[in-house]
Amino acid sequence: MMRKANQKLATVCKNLSPSSTMTGVLQRSVAATSVVPSRSKVLTVDNMNPFVKSMEYAVRGPIVIRAGEIEQEIKSGKSKPFTDVIRANIGDCHATGQKPLTFLRQVVAICTDPQKLMNDPHDSAGVRVIREDVANYITERDGLPSNPDDIFLCTGASDGIKTIMKLLMTGKSGNERAGIMIPIPQYPLYTATIAEYNAYPVSYYLNEEKGWSLDVSELNRSITEAKKHCIPRAIVIINPGNPTGQVLKKENIEGIIKFAKENNLFILADEVYQHNIYAEGSAFHSFKKVLTEMGPGYKDMELASFMSTSKGYMGECGFRGGYCEAVNLDPDVKYQLVKSISAKLCSSVSGQAAMDVVVNPPRPGEPSYELYKKERDLVLGQLSQKAQMVTQTFNSMDRITCNVVQGSMYAFPQLHMSDAALEAAKKKGVPADVMYCFDLLENTGICVVPGSGFGQKEGTYHFRTTILPTVDKLTEMLERFRKFHDSFLTKYK
Amino acid sequence: MMRKANQKLATVCKNLSPSSTMTGVLQRSVAATSVVPSRSKVLTVDNMNPFVKSMEYAVRGPIVIRAGEIEQEIKSGKSKPFTDVIRANIGDCHATGQKPLTFLRQVVAICTDPQKLMNDPHDSAGVRVIREDVANYITERDGLPSNPDDIFLCTGASDGIKTIMKLLMTGKSGNERAGIMIPIPQYPLYTATIAEYNAYPVSYYLNEEKGWSLDVSELNRSITEAKKHCIPRAIVIINPGNPTGQVLKKENIEGIIKFAKENNLFILADEVYQHNIYAEGSAFHSFKKVLTEMGPGYKDMELASFMSTSKGYMGECGFRGGYCEAVNLDPDVKYQLVKSISAKLCSSVSGQAAMDVVVNPPRPGEPSYELYKKERDLVLGQLSQKAQMVTQTFNSMDRITCNVVQGSMYAFPQLHMSDAALEAAKKKGVPADVMYCFDLLENTGICVVPGSGFGQKEGTYHFRTTILPTVDKLTEMLERFRKFHDSFLTKYK
Repeated sequence: MMRKANQKLATVCKNLSPSSTMTGVLQRSVAATSVVPSRSKVLTVDNMNPFVKSMEYAVRGPIVIRAGEIEQEIKSGKSKPFTDVIRANIGDCHATGQKPLTFLRQVVAICTDPQKLMNDPHDSAGVRVIREDVANYITERDGLPSNPDDIFLCTGASDGIKTIMKLLMTGKSGNERAGIMIPIPQYPLYTATIAEYNAYPVSYYLNEEKGWSLDVSELNRSITEAKKHCIPRAIVIINPGNPTGQVLKKENIEGIIKFAKENNLFILADEVYQHNIYAEGSAFHSFKKVLTEMGPGYKDMELASFMSTSKGYMGECGFRGGYCEAVNLDPDVKYQLVKSISAKLCSSVSGQAAMDVVVNPPRPGEPSYELYKKERDLVLGQLSQKAQMVTQTFNSMDRITCNVVQGSMYAFPQLHMSDAALEAAKKKGVPADVMYCFDLLENTGICVVPGSGFGQKEGTYHFRTTILPTVDKLTEMLERFRKFHDSFLTKYK
Repeated sequence: MMRKANQKLATVCKNLSPSSTMTGVLQRSVAATSVVPSRSKVLTVDNMNPFVKSMEYAVRGPIVIRAGEIEQEIKSGKSKPFTDVIRANIGDCHATGQKPLTFLRQVVAICTDPQKLMNDPHDSAGVRVIREDVANYITERDGLPSNPDDIFLCTGASDGIKTIMKLLMTGKSGNERAGIMIPIPQYPLYTATIAEYNAYPVSYYLNEEKGWSLDVSELNRSITEAKKHCIPRAIVIINPGNPTGQVLKKENIEGIIKFAKENNLFILADEVYQHNIYAEGSAFHSFKKVLTEMGPGYKDMELASFMSTSKGYMGECGFRGGYCEAVNLDPDVKYQLVKSISAKLCSSVSGQAAMDVVVNPPRPGEPSYELYKKERDLVLGQLSQKAQMVTQTFNSMDRITCNVVQGSMYAFPQLHMSDAALEAAKKKGVPADVMYCFDLLENTGICVVPGSGFGQKEGTYHFRTTILPTVDKLTEMLERFRKFHDSFLTKYK
């Protein structure tokens, strides 16, 4: 029986990474669209939902499509100056060689096997157990109570973020649109969702000169300007940062909370990288803890914090597990939230089980602890090492500056373009960072994402790279990168 | 190691049905909301997204909340005229005692186990394999080609339906809103999604007198009336029907397709119950097959068909697997579809693997085939038996009429209310079907959903019951039901 199941796997998942994403699929779909004639269609690009049209999603944009094409070209024997594509564009740990943690996979596998599963189908309270484990985790993390009734499990953090953001829409147009404050640079989910909901993006710039920190004066500038166009309703903070890799200091978080209070803003704290802290002196402070400890006037503020199974040291993108802890909501709003979740149905049970292991891993003395600790420490130790490698190597290159990767999985180095490079990009009709990244890909096989996909100060140019390739592969990647960069500088002197 | 993983399971999934849904969770969340004071909140029910407020989702509405409370009351020792709640409100097979099919669980479990998984993380083409299997399944089902590039995998059919429907929104207000034609009665996902997107629901009534069939004259009446309020853009057909259990005849489908053609409508075919056909003489005809065979003028029409792992004989609600086959799309629209999917990320890998097994089950001669066949035939045989039991029993009761359950998992019997019953409901300020269902629950522990949650012709009263409880439990349920119904008739003579 199991032999047969194993055989079937040859079909089902011969090439299926547990965390494989739809990138490849999307590429092929796009490529395949050109065969259908467009005339006389019910649904055309002119009469379709304009807000879907205005969405952008850089992490899986044209450069990723080109990377896929190059991989196909290599497979079909085309000669290239490199032998493989290094995908440093997407925060999928397993896709770049990290092994899944044994314990998590064991638990989820056992949950799945019908012979082993403890199955009590008449009681739907099971998910409650996982939400209690999440609450216990938060309680332990912050040293402050957490209520399982404030927690809902979602299909990855993205799903939770969209669910909360949807509540904040005013449903009106013109300058009564809901404004959502987002950092620039930001993770493209935010601009894509804001576009889809026809909300107004209120951009605040992170301070690159001060390690991508967040200046309250910039928040004030941003919101003042935005009030002409929208009703600002919420502020998104990504901490540790994506794509910027910074870890906010406690005092900085206090300043943001005060700002949110003064401006009557709902706080959305994207804290999916809370386990990914590398730099000495850096520590993760949850918005919930800081806000609660600020006491009366602050501790009752509305806050939603998001966590994921996809990041951390588990890196389980494939299960699409996540949770949202939403505190201090108006009870009527909470009722509406619950209703909107029930219409969408819950996340997959595997994703929920994976989330449980993230918040409730083996403890010292338990049989699985030693292996778990070994695997976790290896992953986190290597990430820390790779964060340093990346920062140091980029800073050693001419015309590149790179803030310390304090946390998360990314660096967002700045490219200081020569006039010649800017001129060449202008001639090609593309932003200079896009030109750079495409040249890099074609010449080295390294796939990183141009900064313009995340947003950047006008006149500055960046790219986002993950720190996820294995140490050996990353070493090779940085060598290839240096060679390319030197030749780029020579070419555009 | 595995021992430890097993131990952990005591925490993770002691009470976790593989297909458990968030119902219990939601109930508790709602109950727990009354502690937070409402004043001075950023987000209130008055300034929140009005379209989320207007969503309704009957299948998990107040009657389900009450059912959960009664279960708690029984647990805490409160005396009741019954010993357990029978949940006939929701189409979750495993929650009502059906055992998961061994083969599917084996495949998904093996996909999860890191020691057994064939892991090729550098190739993201894995999902392609599953989409090819889906295309092969459709090709074999219809005897017509299917293209893997027309297929995307989604987080249950609901996710796919929302994704396609979103494209159709005109993004405008007033009488330029997008109109979506939906059957009445319908599955509440549709009205909920239409409300969330601020679209206009164009209701067409199914013909209860003719076995819930679909009259084209009614489609014409409905669309003519709706044109004052919206731009009709699409028609939803649920076949086999939910909540109505009918299976459309080929000629009926042809009539609908002609109507869609004449009115320039995109077709959304909810075909998640395509494996659930019970009545003699009934057969499943896919919209794609019928439309294609209608030839020139029809075979190029835009159509999206939806399938799920949650229904059929697998009944795997917990994995949230699904696919959408969208054919004949405008290439530019397809590009936008692909983009909007990529911003949302793909469905869970477990859900995708489960979908693969549904479309690619063991074949005769393969080692797993015998057990698979035995389990499948048992499930389908019992569903067929239960469909008959339900139809016959309800039709044997005074003042209840029930169309034959030809397919899907539901019956939607009509309650012919006496004047006294109508008067009593009026006094209580609730629709008569709601009064009936609450009385039924309180007196018998049977949880069914009032017809008003699905829509029904004015002045008619129905309820939806699943046919999912085990044969023994269903027998008991129908006995309890008959007793209650007799006493209800006596009470409201």
